[in-house]
Amino acid sequence: MSRSLQIVGAGLLGTSVGLALAHAEWSVWIADADESAQRLAGELGAGSAGWSPDDVDLVLLCVPPSSLAQVMAETIRLYPLATISDVLSIKTEPQVQAEKLGCGERFVGGHPMAGRERSGAVAAQADLFDARPWAICASGAAGPERVAVVEQLAIDCGADPMIVEARAHDAAVALVSHLPQVAASAVAGQLIGANPVAMALAGQGLRDTVRIAGSDPALWTEIFIANAGTLAPLVGRLAAELAGLAEALGGGAKADGTGEGRASTDSGRDVDKTIERFLDQGRRGFAQIPGKHGAPATAYTVVPVVIPDEPGALARLFATVAKAGASVEDIDIEHSPGHPVGIVELSVRPDEAAGLVSALDADGWSSH
Amino acid sequence: MSRSLQIVGAGLLGTSVGLALAHAEWSVWIADADESAQRLAGELGAGSAGWSPDDVDLVLLCVPPSSLAQVMAETIRLYPLATISDVLSIKTEPQVQAEKLGCGERFVGGHPMAGRERSGAVAAQADLFDARPWAICASGAAGPERVAVVEQLAIDCGADPMIVEARAHDAAVALVSHLPQVAASAVAGQLIGANPVAMALAGQGLRDTVRIAGSDPALWTEIFIANAGTLAPLVGRLAAELAGLAEALGGGAKADGTGEGRASTDSGRDVDKTIERFLDQGRRGFAQIPGKHGAPATAYTVVPVVIPDEPGALARLFATVAKAGASVEDIDIEHSPGHPVGIVELSVRPDEAAGLVSALDADGWSSH
Repeated sequence: MSRSLQIVGAGLLGTSVGLALAHAEWSVWIADADESAQRLAGELGAGSAGWSPDDVDLVLLCVPPSSLAQVMAETIRLYPLATISDVLSIKTEPQVQAEKLGCGERFVGGHPMAGRERSGAVAAQADLFDARPWAICASGAAGPERVAVVEQLAIDCGADPMIVEARAHDAAVALVSHLPQVAASAVAGQLIGANPVAMALAGQGLRDTVRIAGSDPALWTEIFIANAGTLAPLVGRLAAELAGLAEALGGGAKADGTGEGRASTDSGRDVDKTIERFLDQGRRGFAQIPGKHGAPATAYTVVPVVIPDEPGALARLFATVAKAGASVEDIDIEHSPGHPVGIVELSVRPDEAAGLVSALDADGWSSH
Repeated sequence: MSRSLQIVGAGLLGTSVGLALAHAEWSVWIADADESAQRLAGELGAGSAGWSPDDVDLVLLCVPPSSLAQVMAETIRLYPLATISDVLSIKTEPQVQAEKLGCGERFVGGHPMAGRERSGAVAAQADLFDARPWAICASGAAGPERVAVVEQLAIDCGADPMIVEARAHDAAVALVSHLPQVAASAVAGQLIGANPVAMALAGQGLRDTVRIAGSDPALWTEIFIANAGTLAPLVGRLAAELAGLAEALGGGAKADGTGEGRASTDSGRDVDKTIERFLDQGRRGFAQIPGKHGAPATAYTVVPVVIPDEPGALARLFATVAKAGASVEDIDIEHSPGHPVGIVELSVRPDEAAGLVSALDADGWSSH
């Protein structure tokens, strides 16, 4: 069944939706207050540039949180029958907004769990949503046929729709998306003015922990503000946890910096227990994160391979991996300052590791 | 010049050093209080199992922080002339210990920046230290010829020796290694008992941020305790930063959870500024981390490629990459719960991206 879609906002997400639907049964319009962005999206093939002259089945609002209310009001006026959805990282606020503007019964909020550190139509990708969850909030007054049209959009974009209540969604992303962003930014912020010695000793652990600190501060400020009520207590709890750890560490420190002698006292043992409990809690929490394909996290075996930093080396490596028939679940390349040799870490199922290592050995790779 | 080495402790690091020196000009002995570990290390080829009957050029202490003092005292008695080094993650405490035991003039502490989440001789790798920094603390009373023998060891293990003062080292690792461990564990700890909805929405950002939370709590407790004096104020500062953010977010939250109307007030604007300053600081700190080969961090272009989850897919992909002549600086595989298609993100220099994308397109890959 052919459907019509008006995208409002030709940024990364709006343009990517248009591109994703290029070969699907949707007729798509894409509008943006910024005319050059709107034109670019049209040229890229994300839809007809501008506003649809007729009412549409669905209007997808792809604008920043601060513009949502105004754009939603305009949409209600232009398209009196269309279902309205959005792509914001938080879902309670758009729902409340829709009810306030009197379009609660035709609003179904959405949140594709996809994005990039780059933004704008130029960064758009037809496959941005492939295999990603797309949260759909059916918690409003909208009927099932309106939920279904948003679900169809998610499916046609290649995503996995996931029906979730708006407040449950916001609590979830506060924990699994906004809180990690807070922690990454906080740790990265401590690096400003750091000694070059410290930076030279930085390894993959630091790099992974702070990777998302490279994200756009202005956008994330809006997201944090919009989810402030849910996020504030989580950040407060994190701060309290760390303050407790700092106190325990302060109690465990000796003036000479050695800690020596301390471990034999009762208070020393209490400090050890506090710290180990903190770290153990982290390890247990880490184990809660599901692995690939929604399955519970598996303890993969990591096979590290020494690899020269030269063209074709990865191609040769993966030719060997293919011969071994191993399914690589994850890859990491370890960078090493000032050295032309790197380490590629291949994560495979434990039962596949021995065969992979033999195949690597046979082809002359150093894997151990 | 042939040298002799006594390794004490047949764990991951000690055994790996022995393996790394297998083809170098060193005669190596490896001892462990645990006889089966000592035997295994010997069988793996990490050296002659047990204690060298004669004095040696170098004794390398590869024992946990809690055993260092006792093992160092034993070493002094057994080998009256040998240079003594260690591999602990902190460097002030071993130095103080050596001076206390009267062997300050022959102790040169070391810290290879290498490790794995697995431990023990079984996890040892001859190439564990390849291309990794190996911090060497020449801050004690030991003369240059003793520093040189430790430097030679690092080089022969494939590492890049880096001379650094003990307190500077401990301050550095507190910032770039111990603080990220604290943050990762703290965030991961918040996941315990989380709603399955939240876990289903978890993406790569969370996974990267908390990856190192999977590390061994007992070992890290000893490391934290040993560096407590340096780490405590950093954790305290992080806690204060987060408490400030929590307060700002609390001030920015409206009872209805929308934040609406708030941004137009003066206090609302102050909250926005506080949050944006926090995030911007994180982004600037992130930019301080050096990239590959010790060069300043480069903004790589990320080329995402949709890839089926089937054997040989990566081999075909990297065959195309090799044809394009592109040098891949980093790779990420994005997992997507419940979907047989994944996304491989190839990081390349911006000037190589267009050529790579053309080559991928020509070979039928979906890369955009």
